Order: sequence, then structure tokens, then C-alpha cells
Amino acid sequence: MMKQYLDRVRETSPLIHNITNYVTVNDCANIVLACGASPIMADDRDEVEEITTICQGLNINIGTLNKRTIEAMLLSGKKANELGHSVVLDPVGAGASALRTNTAKRLVDEVKFTVIRGNISEIKTLAGVAAATQGVDANVADAVSEENLDEAIAFAKMFAEKTGAVIAITGAIDLVCSREKAYIIGNGHPMMASITGTGCQLSAMTAAYLTANPEEPLEAAAAAVCAMGLAGEIAHERLSELDGNSSYRNYIIDAIYNMTPEQLEEGAKYEVR
Amino acid sequence: MMKQYLDRVRETSPLIHNITNYVTVNDCANIVLACGASPIMADDRDEVEEITTICQGLNINIGTLNKRTIEAMLLSGKKANELGHSVVLDPVGAGASALRTNTAKRLVDEVKFTVIRGNISEIKTLAGVAAATQGVDANVADAVSEENLDEAIAFAKMFAEKTGAVIAITGAIDLVCSREKAYIIGNGHPMMASITGTGCQLSAMTAAYLTANPEEPLEAAAAAVCAMGLAGEIAHERLSELDGNSSYRNYIIDAIYNMTPEQLEEGAKYEVR
Amino acid sequence: MMKQYLDRVRETSPLIHNITNYVTVNDCANIVLACGASPIMADDRDEVEEITTICQGLNINIGTLNKRTIEAMLLSGKKANELGHSVVLDPVGAGASALRTNTAKRLVDEVKFTVIRGNISEIKTLAGVAAATQGVDANVADAVSEENLDEAIAFAKMFAEKTGAVIAITGAIDLVCSREKAYIIGNGHPMMASITGTGCQLSAMTAAYLTANPEEPLEAAAAAVCAMGLAGEIAHERLSELDGNSSYRNYIIDAIYNMTPEQLEEGAKYEVR
Repeated sequence: MMKQYLDRVRETSPLIHNITNYVTVNDCANIVLACGASPIMADDRDEVEEITTICQGLNINIGTLNKRTIEAMLLSGKKANELGHSVVLDPVGAGASALRTNTAKRLVDEVKFTVIRGNISEIKTLAGVAAATQGVDANVADAVSEENLDEAIAFAKMFAEKTGAVIAITGAIDLVCSREKAYIIGNGHPMMASITGTGCQLSAMTAAYLTANPEEPLEAAAAAVCAMGLAGEIAHERLSELDGNSSYRNYIIDAIYNMTPEQLEEGAKYEVR
Repeated sequence: MMKQYLDRVRETSPLIHNITNYVTVNDCANIVLACGASPIMADDRDEVEEITTICQGLNINIGTLNKRTIEAMLLSGKKANELGHSVVLDPVGAGASALRTNTAKRLVDEVKFTVIRGNISEIKTLAGVAAATQGVDANVADAVSEENLDEAIAFAKMFAEKTGAVIAITGAIDLVCSREKAYIIGNGHPMMASITGTGCQLSAMTAAYLTANPEEPLEAAAAAVCAMGLAGEIAHERLSELDGNSSYRNYIIDAIYNMTPEQLEEGAKYEVR
Repeated sequence: MMKQYLDRVRETSPLIHNITNYVTVNDCANIVLACGASPIMADDRDEVEEITTICQGLNINIGTLNKRTIEAMLLSGKKANELGHSVVLDPVGAGASALRTNTAKRLVDEVKFTVIRGNISEIKTLAGVAAATQGVDANVADAVSEENLDEAIAFAKMFAEKTGAVIAITGAIDLVCSREKAYIIGNGHPMMASITGTGCQLSAMTAAYLTANPEEPLEAAAAAVCAMGLAGEIAHERLSELDGNSSYRNYIIDAIYNMTPEQLEEGAKYEVR
């Protein structure tokens, strides 16, 4: 079932506007290219609405936000809504500072997102549920596990209903949920947490998948999450004894570049509830 | 003929001031080092004139411009002109927004550039010719081909005359033109388009070549374009089955690092008209 | 003796706040992860004090400073002092512009640093000693050598006394000095100078080592310097004929990722005076 969503990215090669952090921006651009789409980065209020307009999708990531870029995020998000474009929010570090929490909440209030993707602590913060964000990583106390899976799904579906967005909560177990349906995804490898920005990269790639598949945001987002996790698995198998997190980073993007729709179809591990 | 231009970069190891975008800045710094020069990045108006002064060449790239950095670009460009330094303009995304188009035009009006390097859509926009910029990539409708080559050369020579700069239009076929002479360069590989920032990297490296060879800007720019394309070829041959765009990015910079003047001499594919 | 300092980084996995330049920020984040700690990057005054507060250590790098981020550096540094956190200063390019020199000096005046790490030209500038900074690289005239080693150690100890910080001067020979004791470190490889940001990476990693070993800042900083140099050696041995500075960059971070405490213990080359 996942095959077609990647096919469509490659066929349509959508142009994706990214307002993202300067830490992982290069990897975000390269993974968007790797999956078959094209990135453009622009974050100044004097141009963002125009850039959003010439693009087909938008990815907003608050990883290194400031007053200037927050304004650009709001302008772009509203313009994308006007145009009916797919929009992703990555609320990096929501909960780590009032600025991040408030900005993420304000974005959710003022912009209609197609997908909100974060770790469990960020999403809980955004939902106003007590969370324990530790910097930009999820707190272990919050982690989705087999034990609290039903509860986590119920939470994600509730937040999907509240926001109208597909909610993607990624971690050891990934959840991608609409208000009615949940994909529980088992792809990925723990070593992905040792690279900065695999989450940012996934958000950027999700924007590409959504834009190429606008009629099926839940499935497109689930396909992007499966693809990222599968790339993490393929890249991990490729590691030699001397390779570490830096080579792993390259191999993951390489795996996205080389991933065939058939490979995604066969490698995707998910369950629907 | 190309050999000597690389020799001079390695001999003189010029210091290059870069005001460039945060997407590809790390690759720009590493490729400047790889070719034998040294980079310094600084973009605040409170220091850019001083930084330009201690450097020997300047590279201005508008990829993620904003009010603050636009001011810095103008100050640095004028200072470099005063000092007689080589200056490169990379008008990333000119045509994609009024801010980019107007900033690029203003820079060309107020600063004398040694080389202006962009894709065909960006250069057409800058020349006031109807272009069809699609984000930061050239539009296929604009692409230089065997069919429109004479026309493209005439355009580039005209724009070189108008601006006093060497015009470098890169794509499947690369043109490097003064008002009288055109280098038509056949190096490169299509896969280079699947990496973010090969154009940005080329602009930064061009600044190094120009600075090391100030008497021959046309030839130095042509040599840099050949070197980048040749690196793309060498790196492509090195790709294994599992490598994708991320490893390719590393291999291109590696190829610049290892490129001998003799290798450039033998590998450069060009014609002069 | 070095073994335990790395052990502690892995055991405690400290969260490190980095206010750093956009050129090498991705490598800084990945090396912090590679050594066993966690990075968070945040540079806006509206959140930096909060981010410093949730972290356990702070790294300030002035590589692409501007008015907005300078203010953030001062706020974070003071907050870290209040909280008793370890703080590193990397005065990138001090001496290259008045803005850099004055900002670095102001930071040293207003913030108590645990470690100040730079090349010899930057540290001399900061100490008010005539230096010959050339961009962001040390001037050869300043370089620490066997001939001027005693003098350099005396200078570093004097500056350590004056600032109350451990002074780390890195180059072909690395010095890590308190007012009473000097580590003279022989690890490293000349090719490290052909990668942008090995100094920035070392500063970020030093913050992780210090934070995990707050009682022994001199030894922890020396251990970080040994680890970085040793990684440069290990990565250099791994280079194949086609590898250049870009692959080398990846291999260094990989070597930090794979480094065992025993490997550091055996590979560290230092003398104490």
C-alpha cells in the first residue's frame, strides 16, 4: 500500500518551502532531493509569502526560532492555508522554553496544519498535557511503549481531532494518527537518535510526501515515516566497524535516494488500528 | 591551459570572505579548503568591511538573504571594489521572489562583480530577460542546449558587456563568457543536481580561483567551472551501489581536495568561441 | 588517567547548550552526540536563559556573531555562572575584526569561563598581546613550537591566572593550562586544518567533558583535546586514496563515536609541566 506514495513523489517532484533551523538545514535539503522532490529555504518576511506561493508544500520547523523567523512562519503558514497547500509543523523543543511552547501553540492556533510531527514530549506539550521535554529529545518518562500504546493512540487521535491535523509521534514506536485511524509503525533503528536532525529530516520529507499525495494525508505521512525508518535500517546494515554517527547520517540519506517504491512496500512494518 | 589556475590557488592560498546562505555554508567552507584556499564567513554589518579588508577575495550568495545580511553584502561588495578584490555574485533564486530579484539587481548596480555565476533562469532574471525561475533551480524551458547554444552565448556576452563581469551560466552545458570570448564547458554529471548547493560551492571556489589569478578572470572562472564538473565526474565513478546523493556530496569535495593540476588539465572539456 | 573523563561523559550524558556559528553547527551537534552527550542549539535572547537553565553546560562560539546573538551569549553566560554550570568560550576570529575582538573581551569580562579554547592568535588577541590573526586561522608567526614552548606555556598560565579559566591553545602542539599546570598534547594530524570547524567541534565536545567532570576542569579539557586529536589520527589512518577532507570530516566524528575509554587512555600523548 505504501508504494504508490513514493511513486507520486518521484512523478510529481514537488517544490517544498522550508522554514527550518540552521542546525540540520543542509540534511533537510538533501533528503528532500533524495526522495525525489525539490527544496527551497527562505525565512524572511519580505519574501516568504511569495516563496510559499511558487512552492506546492510547506515545512515549518521551530528548531532555532527567533522573532524574525517566527513572523515568517506565521505569514507562510497562512499563505499556504489560503492556497490549500499541505503544511507540516515540527515543534522542535516545545516545552524546553516558553518561546518554543508559545510559538508552537500560536502556530497551531493560527495555521491549519496537515501534519504535526514531533516526539512525544513535544506533542504532549503542544496538547497542553503535562510533558517532560528534555531539551530537543523526548523524555523517557513520556516514551510510547507496548504498555501505554492504547493510551498513546487515544491521545494522538484526540489531538488529531482537536487540531484537524494528522499527528505523527515518532520514537522507538512511531504513531501516525487521524482522529479515526492510527498507523503504528515499527521501522527504524535506535542509532538514529545518535544523529542530529533525523526528526527534522523526516518532517521535511513528510512535506514532500503530503504534497505529492494531497488526497491522502494520513497514508502519505505514514509512508514517509516508514521510509525514514526503513532508511535507518538499511543504513545500519551498511555500517562497517569504523563507521559511526556521521557516516550513518550519510547512509540514511543515501538509502532514501536509492529507495525504490517496491523496497518501501516490502520493508514497511506497520499495523493499523 | 587550465593547470596553472589551480597551481596558483595552491601556491597563494587566498583568504576568501563569504557572505552566503546557511543551507550550504559548511560545504562552501570545505570546498574552499579542498581547493587550497581558506574561507572566512562573516555577515554582520558591524564587521564585514573589516573582514573583506583582511581577505583577498569575496563571494556573495543571496540564498537565504534578509535585511541584515543584504546590508552586509552591499557594504562588503563596495569595500572589495575599493580594494580591487575579486568579487563573485551568486544570485540564488533571483526570479523566485521580488526580494531576491531586486537585491540581485541592486547588487549588480552598486557593486562591480568580477564574476556573476548562476543558472540560466537566474541570469536571465538579472538581465531583465523573461525567465521562468522555479524555486532555486533553473526552469527546463530556459536550459542551454545544443539547439539554442549560439543564442545563449550571444546573451551571455551581451550581459558580460553590460555588467563588466564574466558571466558563468551553469547547467548541463556550462558557459563562461566575457563580452568577447566564450568557454563552453562539457564537464559535470546530471546527478550533481541531486545535491543541494553544488552551485553555491562552485561560486565559493570560483572566488578562490579568481583571487589567485586576478589578471585572468575569464580563464580562472572557466578553470573553476571545469574543476567542479570534473570533480562531479570523478566522484560519480566512485559511487558504489549503496551510495546516494549524500555520499556523492562528500566524494565531490574529496575529488576537489585530491585534484592535481595535471588531472584538471587532462580532464577539462571545453571549447572556446 | 584520561579514561575516566570519557567514561563520565557516557555515564551522565549531559545536555549542552550551544550558541554557535551556522558554518559548523551541524558538525558540533553530531560530535556532541558522538561523544555521548546531547546538544541543544538556541540563540535568541527570548529563550536562551531558559535553555541554559534546563541544560547542564554551555558552549559559546562567536564564529558568525551578530548583535542579536551577542546579546544571547551574554545572557546565557551570566545565567550559566549563576547556576554554576561549566562554560566554554571559543573566540573564533578574535583579532580579525574589532567586533570579534571586543565581543570576545567583553564576554571574558562579564562571564566567568571554565575553559577558553582557541588558536594561539585568538588567545593572544584576547590577552591583549600583539597577535597576527589571519582570518579564522592562526598566523604561522604565532605558532607554538618546540622552540617557543616554554614561553607559550608561561603565557597560557599567566592568562589562566588572569581569567580564572583553563586556557586551551590548539594547533600542531596543543596546550591546556591552568595557572599552575600545563598539559602539552601531541595528538592530532596536520590534515585536520583542511576541514572547517575542527576547532568548533572540539569546543563543543570540551563543554560535554567539562560538564560531566565538573570537579576537574583542567583534566577534563585535556582529555577532550586528546580525544579530538586521537580521532584525527584514527580517521587519517582510515583514509583511502580517493578520500579527501569531506570524508575525513565524517571519519573524525565516527572515530569519536567509536572511541572507547581504553582507546583514549592508550592513545593520548601528553606531558605535564
